[in-house]
Amino acid sequence: MRTRFQADLDQLKQKLLAMGGLAEQAIDRATQAYQLRDLKSCELVIHGERAINLAEREIDELALDLLAMQQPMAVDLRFITAVTKINADLERVGDQAVNIVERVMSLVGLPEVDLPVDIPRLSGAAGGMIRRALEAFIAGDDVMAEAVLRMDDIVDRMNREIFQSVVKRMHEAPEVIPQSLDALLIARNFERIGDHATNIAEDVIFWVRGSDVRHHASVAAEQKA
Amino acid sequence: MRTRFQADLDQLKQKLLAMGGLAEQAIDRATQAYQLRDLKSCELVIHGERAINLAEREIDELALDLLAMQQPMAVDLRFITAVTKINADLERVGDQAVNIVERVMSLVGLPEVDLPVDIPRLSGAAGGMIRRALEAFIAGDDVMAEAVLRMDDIVDRMNREIFQSVVKRMHEAPEVIPQSLDALLIARNFERIGDHATNIAEDVIFWVRGSDVRHHASVAAEQKA
Repeated sequence: MRTRFQADLDQLKQKLLAMGGLAEQAIDRATQAYQLRDLKSCELVIHGERAINLAEREIDELALDLLAMQQPMAVDLRFITAVTKINADLERVGDQAVNIVERVMSLVGLPEVDLPVDIPRLSGAAGGMIRRALEAFIAGDDVMAEAVLRMDDIVDRMNREIFQSVVKRMHEAPEVIPQSLDALLIARNFERIGDHATNIAEDVIFWVRGSDVRHHASVAAEQKA
Repeated sequence: MRTRFQADLDQLKQKLLAMGGLAEQAIDRATQAYQLRDLKSCELVIHGERAINLAEREIDELALDLLAMQQPMAVDLRFITAVTKINADLERVGDQAVNIVERVMSLVGLPEVDLPVDIPRLSGAAGGMIRRALEAFIAGDDVMAEAVLRMDDIVDRMNREIFQSVVKRMHEAPEVIPQSLDALLIARNFERIGDHATNIAEDVIFWVRGSDVRHHASVAAEQKA
């Protein structure tokens, strides 16, 4: 039989997924803002951050209520703990999206130049990690979550390549330095979004397995060997 | 009379303070690594990250045990929640210190140049925020915590000034671009440390006041008005 507590846990899960939707939307809008040099999309991201912050607080309050009212079993306790951590990471994804559009607004004020930075590709990879991590959360699937940890290495490598090619470009054409810096910082923000996805995946594994994978030799490292 | 539960809460607090000590040490060592171009200090920071990660896990496990064994009162529940959040922020301070020394190791491989970047000053401000936030935590002092929120504006302003002057320097002397980028990214990492201190201060306020100050009109913004 379904208890009231289980219904509450389900509500918590649904709220977190809605929060995830807002974070993914912020990533998409920020990417579009960059691609189209579109101030309207920038505004949407900045405006949307308020909704994300509100959602974060609601989820935290619900989680706290559940902890206070019940004596949760170990697995439920891990679930609630995982939700509050994932919640904080999703909120920070929203912050990164805001950082990105702030840089886009700076770029829009500068002459348009050609840079060796494939932001849409990077955004696709980082956004894909978030989506995948949330799918792993929905399914309670630790193997899917592990796949996210491996994806992070790809994002990190893309970022290193971008860094090197942008430095080269700056040397060749000092007049594109301001635009290059904006693009580099945008790339960093996407890398950070990938890091948040990694955190989320680790929290899913912790919830499902009951053991802490954080800071262990990463799956990705083993894979490489 | 002191209960077993209160003794456990106290132990949790002590462990978190020790964790804070490790994070502060990482900041100091990273700063020294930059100032002295010292690879030995870099190693210490990278090595020290393992101790920080271990401490983080221990604290999380103790917090989870306390939640599972007891039916904590509202204020204790908020305290335990605050501890797990502060814990995560301190761990990320350790990550930032590692990011910094990675950049220092890159810098050491490049010719030494003069840059308009006062890293020790920035580090002093960001490290000061962490120290102050932990003091507010020890004292359970929400007013002291609010002061940390205001300090963040100073760190952000220092960073904007650094950004502008470094861009100018890169224009004048494209040969210093690689060093400039390293210094800029180091400055960003210190700014992030300031952000973590802000998070910690907000968690202290949440614990003490029982209300959520996150994402409200900031104290600093009111101060400026």
